Amino acid sequence: MKLKAKWIDFSSGGPLVGVLHQHDAITLNIRSLDRIKLCFGNKQIVVTTDITHDKKQVKPGEIGLFKDLKKHTKVKKGQQISVKYAKEPSSVDLIKKKLDGKELNREEINKIVKDLISNSLTEVESTYFVSACYMRKMSLNETKYLTEAIIKNSGKLHFKKHPIADKHCIGGVAGNRTTMVVVPILAAAGVTIPKTSTKSITSPAGTSNTMEILAPISFSNKEIINIVNKTNACMVWGGQGELASADDKLIKIERPLHLDARGFLLSSILAKKTAADASHVLIDIPIGPEAKIKNKAMAKDLREKFLKLGRMFKLKINVILSDGTQPIGNGIGPALEARDVLLALKGEGPKDLQEKSFAMAALLMKMVGISKAEKKVKQIILSGLAHKKMMEIIKAQGGNPNITPEKIKLAPHTSIIKAPKAGRVRYLSNREITRIAKLCGAPTHLKAGLYIHKKVGEIISQGEPMITLHAEDKSRLQDAIKEAKNSIIFNIA
Amino acid sequence: MKLKAKWIDFSSGGPLVGVLHQHDAITLNIRSLDRIKLCFGNKQIVVTTDITHDKKQVKPGEIGLFKDLKKHTKVKKGQQISVKYAKEPSSVDLIKKKLDGKELNREEINKIVKDLISNSLTEVESTYFVSACYMRKMSLNETKYLTEAIIKNSGKLHFKKHPIADKHCIGGVAGNRTTMVVVPILAAAGVTIPKTSTKSITSPAGTSNTMEILAPISFSNKEIINIVNKTNACMVWGGQGELASADDKLIKIERPLHLDARGFLLSSILAKKTAADASHVLIDIPIGPEAKIKNKAMAKDLREKFLKLGRMFKLKINVILSDGTQPIGNGIGPALEARDVLLALKGEGPKDLQEKSFAMAALLMKMVGISKAEKKVKQIILSGLAHKKMMEIIKAQGGNPNITPEKIKLAPHTSIIKAPKAGRVRYLSNREITRIAKLCGAPTHLKAGLYIHKKVGEIISQGEPMITLHAEDKSRLQDAIKEAKNSIIFNIA
Repeated sequence: MKLKAKWIDFSSGGPLVGVLHQHDAITLNIRSLDRIKLCFGNKQIVVTTDITHDKKQVKPGEIGLFKDLKKHTKVKKGQQISVKYAKEPSSVDLIKKKLDGKELNREEINKIVKDLISNSLTEVESTYFVSACYMRKMSLNETKYLTEAIIKNSGKLHFKKHPIADKHCIGGVAGNRTTMVVVPILAAAGVTIPKTSTKSITSPAGTSNTMEILAPISFSNKEIINIVNKTNACMVWGGQGELASADDKLIKIERPLHLDARGFLLSSILAKKTAADASHVLIDIPIGPEAKIKNKAMAKDLREKFLKLGRMFKLKINVILSDGTQPIGNGIGPALEARDVLLALKGEGPKDLQEKSFAMAALLMKMVGISKAEKKVKQIILSGLAHKKMMEIIKAQGGNPNITPEKIKLAPHTSIIKAPKAGRVRYLSNREITRIAKLCGAPTHLKAGLYIHKKVGEIISQGEPMITLHAEDKSRLQDAIKEAKNSIIFNIA
Repeated sequence: MKLKAKWIDFSSGGPLVGVLHQHDAITLNIRSLDRIKLCFGNKQIVVTTDITHDKKQVKPGEIGLFKDLKKHTKVKKGQQISVKYAKEPSSVDLIKKKLDGKELNREEINKIVKDLISNSLTEVESTYFVSACYMRKMSLNETKYLTEAIIKNSGKLHFKKHPIADKHCIGGVAGNRTTMVVVPILAAAGVTIPKTSTKSITSPAGTSNTMEILAPISFSNKEIINIVNKTNACMVWGGQGELASADDKLIKIERPLHLDARGFLLSSILAKKTAADASHVLIDIPIGPEAKIKNKAMAKDLREKFLKLGRMFKLKINVILSDGTQPIGNGIGPALEARDVLLALKGEGPKDLQEKSFAMAALLMKMVGISKAEKKVKQIILSGLAHKKMMEIIKAQGGNPNITPEKIKLAPHTSIIKAPKAGRVRYLSNREITRIAKLCGAPTHLKAGLYIHKKVGEIISQGEPMITLHAEDKSRLQDAIKEAKNSIIFNIA
């Protein structure tokens, strides 16, 4: 059946939706949520069906297209589209196979990833795939095939230089913004390091959210290459536009249950690094009872898998196991962490953030063949080159290169949590700090979060500020204060 | 924030959707797919968010409501609604718990079912629950709690009579329309037997779809009680209106992957029988390599569970294991099966459908204390009382009580598959018959399906019709013919 296209300014936020008038739906024998195939020219796209009785929305003879489709097609208003019922794709049977505990082969995983990227799978079907991979686990081979499929079906950056350095942290530790210190140091040392990051899912800030305080982060591949050619580096969001890929969809589905399927984690990281054209990758696995990786055995197992997969994909990978028992730095939340980063690049601010970042920078330098790396890192910091390079990157991405920590605005509503007694800070809960910072509004509210005045091992007097909360509105601040009162965030003894 | 209600004539077919203008979404800090809570008077409802920029759709200060919400609220156009961000319900953590392989207790399962019914869970979250229960299996206790929760949170019919008979077939065998023969026989014998059925999910017809050929099937609880008071029986759709319950939602999510979580099956059946106020239930488990239950061991295990759960819920349950190696009856598809049923009620038509239905009717009579049941069944059939009772039920449900098999119209496009050689039919594939009948359009197209001229054991000449296909349009017929040619539907030797 031929129908006239009509754009509808609705976004489902996920599934692609086409709206039929009830009249045409009956003729086509299509029900709500059925799949329909739209053909125009030599292109085709599969969407799910909404049905309306309201001619003001969609008349008989028309098909309404939700604007999520604009990313996928440039169909014009009034254009003739051929619409027919679409069978479920064969990957649905493959998902069932995995659900039933059977291993998938290369072609099977590639088929699923292709259907995922082309939006041929519904949300329910994709969720079954995620839960099957979470519950049944993925074998190393399946992880390899998934990585290959994501790479094959996603956009890729190409740089003419070699080596290309990259780094990644498994995450789960609040305030751990080492990337934003490491990248300018490496770039200042002449190493190419194009960094793409996702936005934070479960933590109060990620590299992307924090960088957003200093400069725009959404660019086309061409723009990214220009920025890197100018400065040796970039710190951009990889979750949109041409680099967006199957694994972003998988991550989106993991979000509601805060799942973290190990196979996806590995594939996602490896695929992202390959998409960024990396040759040398340093991976940070923080270990702590309240971090993602709870103990050394889990960390070592993960390290082994990274090294094996690295060899399969010809990536030089080095993995460090780091301390994830308390947050890193003092600021938690995008704006508060951006301040710590700018200080660290001058050899100031939180000691732990400096030490960890400098050590990682040196290690990554050694990986790409730079000798006396520790000494060089010190020089680059003390000479101001690291800070200067950061300002170059900020400028190249369209930010203000005269930014200073003092100029970064924080959310206006504040509350101070004071030390109930004098003593030494013995414990600082990574989990509770994360939770309270998110209640304050981070990372959605970039200027919200909290500031930790004293870290584990430091001495504090009774009544001295321990934590300052920052929120954009009073009600969020009240929520955070209330929760903070009912939780054990720190321990002084 | 207070917003003015506006109805939008869109149906998502599932999730409840509220549409905000971008302007208000920013103020509320709400993104697409976020949950929002709508409060009006002392009622509240949680929906997911769509965001628009188009003031023609939804202006700042308004909230657009998809019409799926009409079932849940009578909010009027222009009514003030208070809208705020809603946290995820605590059942999300419980679903995660089940996903991680832990057993859920009574309160936990009740919480999930409550959130499911109140539409507080998104489709993705509900899918995680279904896949967790499918992959991790449900313990007998969990099944019991799920049944209790579904009963507690669903509508229920109340009859003043006792006993109340009911029957159920596990399904998976094409043409197995015994219900429509058993119910009028029992009703004619004076037994109350209010039968609610779901519409077919995976087969070419269910009792509801087939009954739809003869009479309307959607009624309020009050109407159902009236029909039963008049005729001792009803055959209505239980999947809508007041009897709709959590398990319909679960079944809907199972559909795309054709899953069949054993725990859901048990809970769903027990809960439906309890909702229909049943005291005596006969359950039919057909066994066959191409049926749902593949072998006797699986069948016996399932029978055990039914009997145990029956004792828990004080239901008298009897389970028969029946032959599921080939389809029952000759017609496959709603209209074709309705013809077989009307014939069987007069002691005519397919022998297998008659024999099985009469045996089941006698067994159910014995369960409720009627003696010489086999003889009584014969009398009820031969005297025409069964057929007369069926016509009464059809009339009470608003159908035509003068219907005859000849008056039932079939889909107009037909094709005959002939016997390639003479001999005896040795094999008739239940799976392929199901598949081809569905390709013909059944059960969505009520008049489509196929007619089997010869069953296993019968003799056929070369070139004699073996199967006749019926479809509403040529393209479906062609698809079915093509698939039929490429499959082994029967074997003659």
